[in-house]
Amino acid sequence: MNDDKGRPDLRINGERLVSSIKEMGSIGFDPETGGRTRLALSDADKKGRDLLCRWMHEEGLDVKIDQIGNIFGVREGTDPSELPVMVGSHIDTVRDAGMFDGVYGVFGGLEVIRTLNENKVRTRKPLALAAFTNEEGARFQPDMMGSLFYTGTVGLEELLSSKDENGLTAADELDRIGYRGSGTVRAGRYIELHIEQGPRLYAEGLPIGVVRGIQGLAWWAGEYCGESNHAGSTPMDMRKDALLGVAELAAEAEKLALRLGNGSVATMGKISPKPDIINIIPGKCSFTLDFRQFEKSLFEEGKGEIERLITACAEKRGLKYNFRKVAEAPAVVFDSGMVELAERVSARLGLASKRMVSGASHDAQFLSPFCPTVMIFVPSKDGRSHCPEEWTEAEDLENGCNVLLHSVLELV
Amino acid sequence: MNDDKGRPDLRINGERLVSSIKEMGSIGFDPETGGRTRLALSDADKKGRDLLCRWMHEEGLDVKIDQIGNIFGVREGTDPSELPVMVGSHIDTVRDAGMFDGVYGVFGGLEVIRTLNENKVRTRKPLALAAFTNEEGARFQPDMMGSLFYTGTVGLEELLSSKDENGLTAADELDRIGYRGSGTVRAGRYIELHIEQGPRLYAEGLPIGVVRGIQGLAWWAGEYCGESNHAGSTPMDMRKDALLGVAELAAEAEKLALRLGNGSVATMGKISPKPDIINIIPGKCSFTLDFRQFEKSLFEEGKGEIERLITACAEKRGLKYNFRKVAEAPAVVFDSGMVELAERVSARLGLASKRMVSGASHDAQFLSPFCPTVMIFVPSKDGRSHCPEEWTEAEDLENGCNVLLHSVLELV
Repeated sequence: MNDDKGRPDLRINGERLVSSIKEMGSIGFDPETGGRTRLALSDADKKGRDLLCRWMHEEGLDVKIDQIGNIFGVREGTDPSELPVMVGSHIDTVRDAGMFDGVYGVFGGLEVIRTLNENKVRTRKPLALAAFTNEEGARFQPDMMGSLFYTGTVGLEELLSSKDENGLTAADELDRIGYRGSGTVRAGRYIELHIEQGPRLYAEGLPIGVVRGIQGLAWWAGEYCGESNHAGSTPMDMRKDALLGVAELAAEAEKLALRLGNGSVATMGKISPKPDIINIIPGKCSFTLDFRQFEKSLFEEGKGEIERLITACAEKRGLKYNFRKVAEAPAVVFDSGMVELAERVSARLGLASKRMVSGASHDAQFLSPFCPTVMIFVPSKDGRSHCPEEWTEAEDLENGCNVLLHSVLELV
Repeated sequence: MNDDKGRPDLRINGERLVSSIKEMGSIGFDPETGGRTRLALSDADKKGRDLLCRWMHEEGLDVKIDQIGNIFGVREGTDPSELPVMVGSHIDTVRDAGMFDGVYGVFGGLEVIRTLNENKVRTRKPLALAAFTNEEGARFQPDMMGSLFYTGTVGLEELLSSKDENGLTAADELDRIGYRGSGTVRAGRYIELHIEQGPRLYAEGLPIGVVRGIQGLAWWAGEYCGESNHAGSTPMDMRKDALLGVAELAAEAEKLALRLGNGSVATMGKISPKPDIINIIPGKCSFTLDFRQFEKSLFEEGKGEIERLITACAEKRGLKYNFRKVAEAPAVVFDSGMVELAERVSARLGLASKRMVSGASHDAQFLSPFCPTVMIFVPSKDGRSHCPEEWTEAEDLENGCNVLLHSVLELV
């Protein structure tokens, strides 16, 4: 029964999948913005969790909650000595989010289980569905709290003591919504189905992206300091304009990413001049930079170049400067066997795929060092995400979920 | 008695001048910041006005207050048919200001009158000392309210109905501090003594600047609109980054000012990206631009080029844009006879001077179309102004005031 070759025509139910995603998408929905907000451990998150747990129970899963509130639903296999194949993602959202980010991976997994159940497919290994707590980090930091705890990357006490902007701790909020448990489920493999949250598949008209890893990431925050002076009475050659220094840094960071190529991206997301008055030369200007690259040597080169540019753009104008790296995460390379599996399955289903690197972070990156892991991407319209305009066509949702189904069937 | 050639050795009392400026500088002083705050029509402004009026009375001046609260003190001449020669400036300040901006012109004028009085110099024409209301515009807009009313440039009702951030009107506040009068004094000539508020005289070691006019000024506010997207998952060549467009605009505006030369200045004082998050490509970015130039044809060329750059920097990146000119004031050219007079007097006093254009706006620019006008500048240390660090040496204050004295003596 666990031989996928025996069930090559098995398909998930696309309508049921979309209907489930829409039902979750109605929780926390704001008709004014068209988005929904289910910040981690909020009332809306609790409603979403309750819905997921109800559906898990309806499918006969053994539901377990762990100490950080991660939800696991286990479908038994015939061999109790085997570790489960785990699928999943998260159901918390940013503010005014779309319907798909995270939810697609969880309900895609649920749809796989529903399909196996209604077709009475028994498997040797157990199949586990996971919803990790606070992937987004929109309310409690750090983000990806659930997978950080699950993999032992960050300790429980540190995560539970995280406070939101009102001073409420994650521990208190977990207790309040009734999702502080003591169970857990170990994973033997992990597959995360997700929307791309980038424009590449959509632009290329490809239904499936097989994710071979996650880019390395480095973030900096800095400030240039020059001299605030009158915009009318200070000649151009006697200025120390901090904003102009930062503007040049933004342009140079873009040039660097283009020069390094190979998927390098550099972004200045924040820039803030002081005093921020129309007729005063900005004496100070703060900024942030985000640099990402998958290949280790290029990542190292890019990081060094970014720091050299921060220094050079300031010194060129006689500006003082300070900066610090506020985050760094090395690239994560997924298991090549898992990547090849997802590619093979896509091809067998007649779905064109491309290998790609995820620019965004996901729970999968923390699972990857502990068990063979892969992610499957489907197109995001215009690459939009974290906004009400986030969109993936029903056909793409269905295709991705079928790739998940048959990848799982090869593993369980 | 009105023949200056008969009193070539007459000099103002530098110590008395500095002491008067310091006394005014103690009103509204904040020991924490080291600055003083006398926002127009505030209690501190009233204290400053009371001090000025007391000293005007002590010098026997005929004090008149007009409908917008401008204060005039008239020293009689021997010929009642002559219009007075007017000297003055303002005593209101921005928040945490220095001691000199405005106050130097008013108390420099008072010091000239004190010098004439103690030396029993009689003049044919009257000499009037003016302190114009709300030059700074830090509490009520528009700035230069006093000279706008005095010259009929803006109507009284419009100015009186201006509200501060607490909803108090200028009319109510004038009544409250007791400075809403009904008198006035016409001016035949106007001389405004002022600190440069720019770095040129200080950098060149020159004691006197003779101001031949005020730069033309144009201000724009605009916004670029691209697409907010994930900083990790959006390739460089698929971005519409509004911040990068504005950063390039800042750099191009600087290049334009350097290319046009002749004192052209261009400044981006404000830049504000949205969503302003470290790992999101800014989909929107607002900005302001300030461009100034004295020569009419270069001013016109520069304005056209700025608007072309705003358009070009957006279109180059496929960004949408909107912008509008939020202020424009043509250059003001002071009377050449008055400029030559101030130069001649400086030379006679052995003080090196240079002709210069004021980058900042002053009450003098509104007086200029109505009566022959000139301004006399003295060095500002490092060009600093509108801050506690604003500084002018006592010797420079004394020199400028002696130029004012002998310029007045040639006119009265």
